Amino acid sequence: MTLGVSLRSIALEELPKLQEIYQKAFTDILEKYKDSGSNPASVTMEQLYRIYQSSTHSLYFILSDGEIAGSIRLSHLSKETIKLGPIAVSPVYQKRGIGKTALELIEAEYPACRNWLLDTIEQEEYLVDFYKSIGYVPTGRTEAVQPNMTIIFFKKEVSEMLTVQLPTHEYQIIIEKNSLTEIGKWAAKLWKPQKVAIVTDTTVDELYGSLVLNQLTANGFETTKIVVPAGETSKSLENTEKIYEHLAENQFTRSDGILALGGGVIGDLAGFAAATYMRGIHFLQVPTTLLAQVDSSIGGKTGVNTKNAKNLVGAFWQPDGVLIDPNTLNTLEPRRLKEGIAEIVKSAAIADKELWEKLENLKDEQDLLAHAPEIITACLKIKRAVVQEDELDNGIRLILNFGHTIGHAIENTAGYGVVSHGEAVAIGMVQINRIAEQKGLTPEDTTEQLITMLKKFGLPISYDNWNEETLYQALTHDKKTRGTAIKIILLEEIGKAKIVPTEIEEMKEYLKRS
Amino acid sequence: MTLGVSLRSIALEELPKLQEIYQKAFTDILEKYKDSGSNPASVTMEQLYRIYQSSTHSLYFILSDGEIAGSIRLSHLSKETIKLGPIAVSPVYQKRGIGKTALELIEAEYPACRNWLLDTIEQEEYLVDFYKSIGYVPTGRTEAVQPNMTIIFFKKEVSEMLTVQLPTHEYQIIIEKNSLTEIGKWAAKLWKPQKVAIVTDTTVDELYGSLVLNQLTANGFETTKIVVPAGETSKSLENTEKIYEHLAENQFTRSDGILALGGGVIGDLAGFAAATYMRGIHFLQVPTTLLAQVDSSIGGKTGVNTKNAKNLVGAFWQPDGVLIDPNTLNTLEPRRLKEGIAEIVKSAAIADKELWEKLENLKDEQDLLAHAPEIITACLKIKRAVVQEDELDNGIRLILNFGHTIGHAIENTAGYGVVSHGEAVAIGMVQINRIAEQKGLTPEDTTEQLITMLKKFGLPISYDNWNEETLYQALTHDKKTRGTAIKIILLEEIGKAKIVPTEIEEMKEYLKRS
Repeated sequence: MTLGVSLRSIALEELPKLQEIYQKAFTDILEKYKDSGSNPASVTMEQLYRIYQSSTHSLYFILSDGEIAGSIRLSHLSKETIKLGPIAVSPVYQKRGIGKTALELIEAEYPACRNWLLDTIEQEEYLVDFYKSIGYVPTGRTEAVQPNMTIIFFKKEVSEMLTVQLPTHEYQIIIEKNSLTEIGKWAAKLWKPQKVAIVTDTTVDELYGSLVLNQLTANGFETTKIVVPAGETSKSLENTEKIYEHLAENQFTRSDGILALGGGVIGDLAGFAAATYMRGIHFLQVPTTLLAQVDSSIGGKTGVNTKNAKNLVGAFWQPDGVLIDPNTLNTLEPRRLKEGIAEIVKSAAIADKELWEKLENLKDEQDLLAHAPEIITACLKIKRAVVQEDELDNGIRLILNFGHTIGHAIENTAGYGVVSHGEAVAIGMVQINRIAEQKGLTPEDTTEQLITMLKKFGLPISYDNWNEETLYQALTHDKKTRGTAIKIILLEEIGKAKIVPTEIEEMKEYLKRS
Repeated sequence: MTLGVSLRSIALEELPKLQEIYQKAFTDILEKYKDSGSNPASVTMEQLYRIYQSSTHSLYFILSDGEIAGSIRLSHLSKETIKLGPIAVSPVYQKRGIGKTALELIEAEYPACRNWLLDTIEQEEYLVDFYKSIGYVPTGRTEAVQPNMTIIFFKKEVSEMLTVQLPTHEYQIIIEKNSLTEIGKWAAKLWKPQKVAIVTDTTVDELYGSLVLNQLTANGFETTKIVVPAGETSKSLENTEKIYEHLAENQFTRSDGILALGGGVIGDLAGFAAATYMRGIHFLQVPTTLLAQVDSSIGGKTGVNTKNAKNLVGAFWQPDGVLIDPNTLNTLEPRRLKEGIAEIVKSAAIADKELWEKLENLKDEQDLLAHAPEIITACLKIKRAVVQEDELDNGIRLILNFGHTIGHAIENTAGYGVVSHGEAVAIGMVQINRIAEQKGLTPEDTTEQLITMLKKFGLPISYDNWNEETLYQALTHDKKTRGTAIKIILLEEIGKAKIVPTEIEEMKEYLKRS
C-alpha cells in the first residue's frame, strides 16, 4: 500500500472501474449541462476499450493511500505535447488536493513534455480557478458548445532549464515565458530570506521594477532597489561605487545578494559589484534583453568601463541562478532585439547546424520571438558547452568571438551609437567570412548563407564609412591581441568553427573591401 | 659509466686514492702557506681512517664522466646543519665547473639541511669568489691562523619553500634571507618575459624600489613602477583606479602582471587591481613587513577601503608566487615588527604548540628576528593548512580570527593610529581568553601564558580608554557578524582553537573589564 497520492496504469480488466469513477465524478456536470454527447459520465465501455487500445493514449488511476480515488487520461500529441483528457476525482476524495498532486506526478512522469493542454467548462469557475492555480493559462481559444456551456482551452508551458556546471560552482538557468511573475518564489528556492538589492536601469525599472520588488518582498526578502540611467555609460566605476555605498548603508553582509534586472550593461555592472563587495556576495541574473539572455547571462564575465577603455575592469563571478522570461522581449525596441539576433545567428554558425536550419525556417523577427524559449535554450547550450570547458577564457571560448574581432573595431571607431554591437558583429562576420572564402580557408557559399540569414532579420551586412586603416589601428589595440599574432575565428562549415592564429599584419587583408 | 658530474661514497679500500687527491689538489696551497698542521695535503692515512669510521662524517668522490675527479667531506652537525670539509678537485679537472655541480648534488642529497657551513683561506680570492658565486655568504667570523693566512667562515641558508595547493591554482612561497637580490631570477622562473608593474609605497620604494626594478629589468621584464604614499589611506578605490590607468597607458594585457612590493596595504591594493584589471592578470607578492609575511601573503584576500568602511571592496585572487626576504625586517620600525609578532603569537596559540614552545624559548624581538625564516615558515604552514581547506573563507578559516573580533572593535574605535592592528589583536586575545576562562570555556592559566608571551615581545595586553558600550556597538557592526549569532574563537588549549557560536547579546560579557 502506497501512502499519499500515487498513480498506476489502468489494466484492461479495470475499465469498468474507470467507467464507474467517471459516472461518480461527472454526474453533477451531466445533470447540470445535459452534455451527454461529450460528458465522461456517459462514456460507453466500447469507447473506453478503443481508448485503451490506442497507442497515443494513456490511462492512469489516481490512488490515495493505495485506494483508487480518480483517474487521468493522456493523449500524446507528440513527445513534447500532451493533452489531458478527463481528470476525474471521486466525490468523497475531492477537495483534498489530490487532483493537484496527481497532475504534478504526471508532469514528473513525462519530463520531455514541454506543453500540457487541457480544456474545461468556462462556467465552472472552481475548475477554471483550479487549473489557473496550478500554472495553466488560457490559450485564448474558447468554444461555445451549448447556450450555457463554453469550453475554455488551457495550456501550460513547462520551463526550459539548463544546469551550468563549473569546477567549483553550479547553477541553473530557467527559460520560461511569464516567469517574471514568479520571480519571488524562484529566488526563495535559491536563497534563504535575506537582503536583496535589485540593480536595474530606468527603462527596465519602469516596466518591471515594481513587479520584481513586490514579488521578492512577498517572498520574505528585505528588498532595496538601485536604479541607474539606461545606457552603456552607466557601466562605470562611479556607479559601482554608488552600489557599494548603497549596500553598506543598508548593512549588506556576505550572506546577502544582488539581483541584476536588465540587459548586458546591468548584468555587467551589478555582477562586478557583487564580485567585489566584501570580496563577493550572492548574485542572481535576470536578463531582459535578447542579447543578455543568449549571451551575457552565462559565462561569469562582469565588468565596467573606465574613461578610456571598455570592459577594462572586471572579474569572473558566477550567479547562483539565471531567470529568463522571454516575454520581456515584447517590450524591447527593435534595434536591441536585432542585437540579440546577431548573436543567435553567430551561435548557430559556429556550433549548431540544427539551430541554423531552424532559423532558416523562420519568417522574420516576430516568428523568432514566437520560438524564443527554444532558440534561447539552444544558444545557451552552445555557450554553456564552451564556457564549462573554459571558465577563465583562455582557449576554446575564443570561438564565441566569430565576427567580433572586426566587429569590435567597427563598434569602437564608428562613433558612439552609430553601429550597435549586434550590427557590428553581423558586419564583422560577413567581412571575415568573405575574405576567408577568398583565401580558401572557408567553404564557398557560407558568406552567401550568412548574408541571407542576416538580411532576413533586418541586420546590416556592411556600413558606409569603411576605413581599412582606422579599423586596423582599432583592431591592433584590441585587448584580445596578445603578442604579434591574433587568433581569428573562421567557419569550417555552417555549424562549426575553428581558431586560426594569424599574423597581425595579415589582418590588413581581412579588412579589405573588394 | 656515468656521464657528467656525479657523486659516490668512498669505500675503505679507496682511502689511499683520497689521500692522493688531497695531495694533488692542495700541494700548491701547502707550499704557499706552509700550513702543514691543517692542510689536507698533509693528512695521514690514520686520520683519514678515523674520519671514515666516524658516524658524523661522510666522504664522497666527485666523478666526472665516471672518473674520480675530486672529493667532498661532510660533517653532520645536525640534520639541519652540515659543515663541508675539504672540497678537492684534482688540478686537471679544475676550472670546468665540477666543484659547483658537485655542491649542488650534495645539497640535493640532503634536502633536510637548511644551513651549509664551510671555511676557506681569505687570501685565496678565487676561492672566496667561488663560494660567494654559489650562494655562500660570509658569517662575519674570520680567524687569523698565521700572519699571512686568515680563515674566513661561510654559511649558506637554504630557502624554506612552501607549496600552496588550491582547487584550481598552485603556487610556491620562498622564504630566504637576501632573496630580494635574486628577485629577477625568481620572477623569470615563474613568468615569461612580459610587462611587470611594481606596486609599492614611498617607504619601501626608497629602500628596495631600485633593486627590484633593476633586477626585473635585468631579467628581461619590461618594468614600470607605481608608488603610492605609505599608510592605510593608500588602500583606496582612487589608487586602484590610478593603477588601472597606469596599466592601460602602458598597454598591459591579460598576459602581463603586477608585483606587490610592500606590506599588507600594498598587497591588498595591488592584489585587488590585479584581480580586476581585465578580469584578472598575473600577480606576485613580495611582502616586506613581518605581518604581511606571516599573514597577508597567503590566502588570496585582496581589497581596499571605501570612505566609510575598511576592506568593504575586494576579491579573492591568488598570486603566482610569493617571495619573502626576512632581511627586509631589519629595516622595519619596531611598532610594525610587533604587529607581525602579535599574529605569530596568535598562530602558535590557535594551531601549533611546537611553535609556541619555540617562541617561549626566545629572549626578545631580536632573537625572534634571528630565527625569522623558520618562524615565518611555521606560521605560513598553519595558514596554508587552513586556507587550503577553506579557500573562500566560509568555515574553518574563522579560527584565524582569534582575538580579532574584539581586536577589530578596538582598532576601529580607538581612533586612527592609536592602537595598531597587532596591538589590538594582542589586547583582543587576552580579553576574550580571560572571559572564556572565567566562563570555564578555556583551560585556566592560558590567559597567563598569553600575557607572558605578549609582554616579552613588548606587546600591550590592555589599553586605557576601554568602553564596553562603544566596543559593543563597533563589534556588532563588524562585517563578520551574520544574523544574530557571532562565531568567536576560543582556545581549547595552547596550540588548538575552536569555533564557538555565541549570541550577539552574550558578547557584552566578553567585553567586560573585571
